[in-house]
Amino acid sequence: MKKLTIGIIGGRGTLGKIFKKFFRKHGFKVLISGRKTRLTSIELVKRADIVIFSVPISSTIRVMREVLPYTRREQLLMDFTSIKEEPIKEMLKGKASVIGLHPMFGKINSLRSKTIIVVPARPGKWMKLLVPLFKKGKIRIKITTAKKHDKIMAVLQGLIHFNFMTLSATLKEISKENKVDINDLLGYGGVIYRIRLGMIARILSQDPELYADISMSNKNTKKAFGKYEEIAKRLNRIIQKGDKKAFEKLFNDSALFFGKFKGEALKESSYLIEQFSKYRREKLK
Amino acid sequence: MKKLTIGIIGGRGTLGKIFKKFFRKHGFKVLISGRKTRLTSIELVKRADIVIFSVPISSTIRVMREVLPYTRREQLLMDFTSIKEEPIKEMLKGKASVIGLHPMFGKINSLRSKTIIVVPARPGKWMKLLVPLFKKGKIRIKITTAKKHDKIMAVLQGLIHFNFMTLSATLKEISKENKVDINDLLGYGGVIYRIRLGMIARILSQDPELYADISMSNKNTKKAFGKYEEIAKRLNRIIQKGDKKAFEKLFNDSALFFGKFKGEALKESSYLIEQFSKYRREKLK
Repeated sequence: MKKLTIGIIGGRGTLGKIFKKFFRKHGFKVLISGRKTRLTSIELVKRADIVIFSVPISSTIRVMREVLPYTRREQLLMDFTSIKEEPIKEMLKGKASVIGLHPMFGKINSLRSKTIIVVPARPGKWMKLLVPLFKKGKIRIKITTAKKHDKIMAVLQGLIHFNFMTLSATLKEISKENKVDINDLLGYGGVIYRIRLGMIARILSQDPELYADISMSNKNTKKAFGKYEEIAKRLNRIIQKGDKKAFEKLFNDSALFFGKFKGEALKESSYLIEQFSKYRREKLK
Repeated sequence: MKKLTIGIIGGRGTLGKIFKKFFRKHGFKVLISGRKTRLTSIELVKRADIVIFSVPISSTIRVMREVLPYTRREQLLMDFTSIKEEPIKEMLKGKASVIGLHPMFGKINSLRSKTIIVVPARPGKWMKLLVPLFKKGKIRIKITTAKKHDKIMAVLQGLIHFNFMTLSATLKEISKENKVDINDLLGYGGVIYRIRLGMIARILSQDPELYADISMSNKNTKKAFGKYEEIAKRLNRIIQKGDKKAFEKLFNDSALFFGKFKGEALKESSYLIEQFSKYRREKLK
């Protein structure tokens, strides 16, 4: 079988690097273009069997438009954008096959067990290549539509990032007057809070532009953020009034969202806490 | 050496059970009183060398007042309350030694590497017993004052719980209209989001009364919650306006709070993600 050539536009970013390694390992020839490569994106598209767009959300459509005239029917176009409706619509304007991807991770050590969302918009023959390849890499795939993807991401990424950023910004603003810094929080909180704060700090150690784009480019998020603001206000009032009944009702109602996962979460987080306790003990020795 | 007797008032709760086991294992005689025990709290205080108050915050002062006339100078009084200023002030009204404790955990599998905050208000000879005992159990202790404790908890527990509850309540309220449930979030998000959601659900699978009390009884929290509400509003406006510059500024400013921990957090959370990936792979086999 002839070696397939994969071209990653924006291949020098975090995801670009991870997938370059992955595809090379699995026998593909990998071409990279970026702002500083000698190879242009148009040249890359001319030479590749599969093209992956791995650029910031705000540049995606522009880059796609630039190279689309050079794509061919026998090619596969894919993208890594955190929203799926618009990039897929754009890629479908060409003749090539189209599969949208959304890797649900940033800086990671291994692709094993990580999730990639797959949107087979006009997949042609290519899912037969892609699915076994991801399986071989122990990557978990979730197949869906662009519309459903964007609806869920508005909640999953949109709200969780909004939530973490609100907390972090509040911490930053009150830290001086309360004389509380991150070392106080880590020192007093121990491993459980270290995990919680760590999963939050993880987002803030990544690319602000990515998170701005995720929050602003998904049309489904805006209503959710309005609701979030309203509930922060409501919860604050409940606490200021000392209305314990209302607090407990909100607590119990919210718990309903997690359903059966609540019990699993307690077990799983206990497992993580024990693992992390061991890790910290070793490290502090 | 004569076996010391420890009496835990409220010994049938989560913490009561954990410490009953711990003290028994380390050679103490342990007495328990609770709402349904034959032994009354007054009887327990008469027979114990060390008394621990392990009751809901809202009952703590009442229970202390009830038994205080029966305490003795040669005893040690301790409590597990999540705030420290008021309970310690109350215990100091007696003649006994007083050490306030705040175990920074709820339902856990092991005390090893967990943190207990220790406030030696009038410790007498007792720290010489307590510190080596906790060390033997590999428990991490953090010694501080009641005032500093309460200031830090307003931020650490207060704000983090406020943050998680606001998110959960928003998820619950928008889930129906957005047709998104917890299985969608877990299915699309993979392990990283499963850890994040799990650490949130962990709180909601515990006692609502405890969290109401923590939020409402610490006088330092209220200003912080007001600031939180204000920032949620500010962030929402930034996103609705599509003001990317302002978003990135808020993001970068917030990141400053985490300081050097940001880099550690990325490494530590990556470690946790890998451990958890393995655990999930094993479980799903």
